[in-house]
Amino acid sequence: MKFIHTADWHLGKLVHGLYMTEDQRYFLNKFVELVEEEQPDAVVIAGDLYDRSVPPTDAVELLNEILFKINVELKTPIVAIGGNHDSAERLSFGSSWYKQSQFFLTGKLEMDIQPIHIHGVNFYLVPYAEPGMVRHLLNDESIHSHQDAMKAVIGKIEQHLNPNEPNVFVGHAFVLGGQTSDSERTLSVGGSGCVGSELFEPFSYTALGHLHSPDAIKHPTVRYSGSLLKYSFSEAKQEKSISIIEMKDNGQFDLRIRSITPKNDLRELEGHLDELMDPSIYEKQNVNDYLKIILHDEGALIDPINKLRQIYPNVLHLERKIAMTDMKKKQSFSSVKEDKKSELELFKQFYEEMTTSEFTDEKNIVMAEVIEKTLKEEAGR
Amino acid sequence: MKFIHTADWHLGKLVHGLYMTEDQRYFLNKFVELVEEEQPDAVVIAGDLYDRSVPPTDAVELLNEILFKINVELKTPIVAIGGNHDSAERLSFGSSWYKQSQFFLTGKLEMDIQPIHIHGVNFYLVPYAEPGMVRHLLNDESIHSHQDAMKAVIGKIEQHLNPNEPNVFVGHAFVLGGQTSDSERTLSVGGSGCVGSELFEPFSYTALGHLHSPDAIKHPTVRYSGSLLKYSFSEAKQEKSISIIEMKDNGQFDLRIRSITPKNDLRELEGHLDELMDPSIYEKQNVNDYLKIILHDEGALIDPINKLRQIYPNVLHLERKIAMTDMKKKQSFSSVKEDKKSELELFKQFYEEMTTSEFTDEKNIVMAEVIEKTLKEEAGR
Repeated sequence: MKFIHTADWHLGKLVHGLYMTEDQRYFLNKFVELVEEEQPDAVVIAGDLYDRSVPPTDAVELLNEILFKINVELKTPIVAIGGNHDSAERLSFGSSWYKQSQFFLTGKLEMDIQPIHIHGVNFYLVPYAEPGMVRHLLNDESIHSHQDAMKAVIGKIEQHLNPNEPNVFVGHAFVLGGQTSDSERTLSVGGSGCVGSELFEPFSYTALGHLHSPDAIKHPTVRYSGSLLKYSFSEAKQEKSISIIEMKDNGQFDLRIRSITPKNDLRELEGHLDELMDPSIYEKQNVNDYLKIILHDEGALIDPINKLRQIYPNVLHLERKIAMTDMKKKQSFSSVKEDKKSELELFKQFYEEMTTSEFTDEKNIVMAEVIEKTLKEEAGR
Repeated sequence: MKFIHTADWHLGKLVHGLYMTEDQRYFLNKFVELVEEEQPDAVVIAGDLYDRSVPPTDAVELLNEILFKINVELKTPIVAIGGNHDSAERLSFGSSWYKQSQFFLTGKLEMDIQPIHIHGVNFYLVPYAEPGMVRHLLNDESIHSHQDAMKAVIGKIEQHLNPNEPNVFVGHAFVLGGQTSDSERTLSVGGSGCVGSELFEPFSYTALGHLHSPDAIKHPTVRYSGSLLKYSFSEAKQEKSISIIEMKDNGQFDLRIRSITPKNDLRELEGHLDELMDPSIYEKQNVNDYLKIILHDEGALIDPINKLRQIYPNVLHLERKIAMTDMKKKQSFSSVKEDKKSELELFKQFYEEMTTSEFTDEKNIVMAEVIEKTLKEEAGR
């Protein structure tokens, strides 16, 4: 039995003020082609279909269109759950009808989790739920953390789980890598909302969503598929992928990775302004990528962001490397003192680096007053 | 062929700050029973399923539950369109799947309107659309009013309409009663968003939503079903009903009306405070009804609203009759003059009638100053 594991589509996502919907549409159309090629027995989407509880209408239309192509046109069963970004109730609307064509969507956690059987594999669908919700549903006052909640939910599932069949858990949670004992858990997890991966031991494979990197944890059977696209610069160096799982009757599986090239990448670009504006440099690149640009220039630059945007229209963030290293140097008070600069001089330098505009006499006067007043107040304490 | 015509459910409606969801749930469960009894070949819902584009989640759940009962459990085809209160795109989500069980939902107007065939009757689904939307869809710059838009849409339908079959138009629009000529229309309709009922002449029956009274227009074939419940005190005296249409093969039909008693009525109640607080009066009534109370008492009353709410918990609006008649009397400036009262005296009287609290000396001083200042300014012009 072959299924595709994906998650965290985040349709309707804004990245640095820019809607990703057209990039998502491009990518998902490629994804549909991949489904057509692979002909899996199911597509699993482990939560966060949307980026927010009330997504923009074009995100609603896009999800409708893509799921319809996969489920109805390609006749592929879909197994999907709500994530923390989805509205459980809104996502659930219509799910009773979707079942007619083997589109199994569980937006909201239910008490009695019945597996979905597809080609000999049992899928257990556990959408994201706050501990308080699980405490209420199971009427168990001892549930306070995500760990407690997940343990209780899996405990309920285990009551009727047949361990001799291949069982797949589909969930949306923050899983701590590796085996943890209760005491370790208390120490390292605290109230952070993590659950231990040992909880998923009863399952042949655990298809997770929530963390955006496919390498978020190293575990033989518990896996994040990773998000559809890179949605922040902290993900710039991640390799996003589509996971294809071939599951045998004994629950063992082979994992294969496929990747889709997005319309525009999201990446960092470093250099001096002159270099980045040089055709021999930018002609080799997809200038439409979403960029965080780090400039190496020292001293003032006139309107660098607009110059850069003439070449790279999707610059989302610009920073100066000199400011970054300076800031690191000055993180401790002692290193600031070593500079032997006055507060006003330090502020002036900081201002010019951050804004790349002149620190005029007028600004100087205002700031000098502020600093004087603050120092007086401090002295008076 | 028998179908039920309903519209304007407005799920998620707030009436004077109170959510109607529980009343709507009660009523719709009775409606499901009625459908079970009548066993129609279709249920037609002519728009405004929700009261707003992003309805509260319990309204979303209620709609899901009721439509599932009717469509899947009772196996009754549903024909529904979006109204001006619905979000066309959000309502449309999933509609491709709903068709599998003969639930035909058109949230958004489409260019090429294909009829839905149910038991020999053709249903044409025309959701609410702004004239600009129709202008854009049909690429026809001459469309400016709702009349132009509806005429163009029906023109498109007529190109393939078979007049020898029974045809039902399902729409959501403000229809002007009776036959109007173009010149009359220009005079009486202007830019008000009305469409003439003559436009629906090609159809055997026109199932409308938008106006909340089933008697909104008198026309042999064009009808409003009226809203599910009374949603404003201007509807207090309307008889809400469910319309049952038995359509013959030649397009002629019989209309039958059924009514459902709501959990709580919405009505006006008049009298003196003492009378309304008298058990012999209120024991004969459903004190939980949603009430607009009109008090006949003259002079000051201490906290009448809270006294009344001890008996009638759902008083939504309270007014004094004396203030109403006084206001009518004083609508023209001449009648005010006849009273020979000063502006300050008039204000004092108005204030006491409206607030039922005392016009203290302090208030007197403030108001006298305001009036003096205003009169001076007027004299100085």
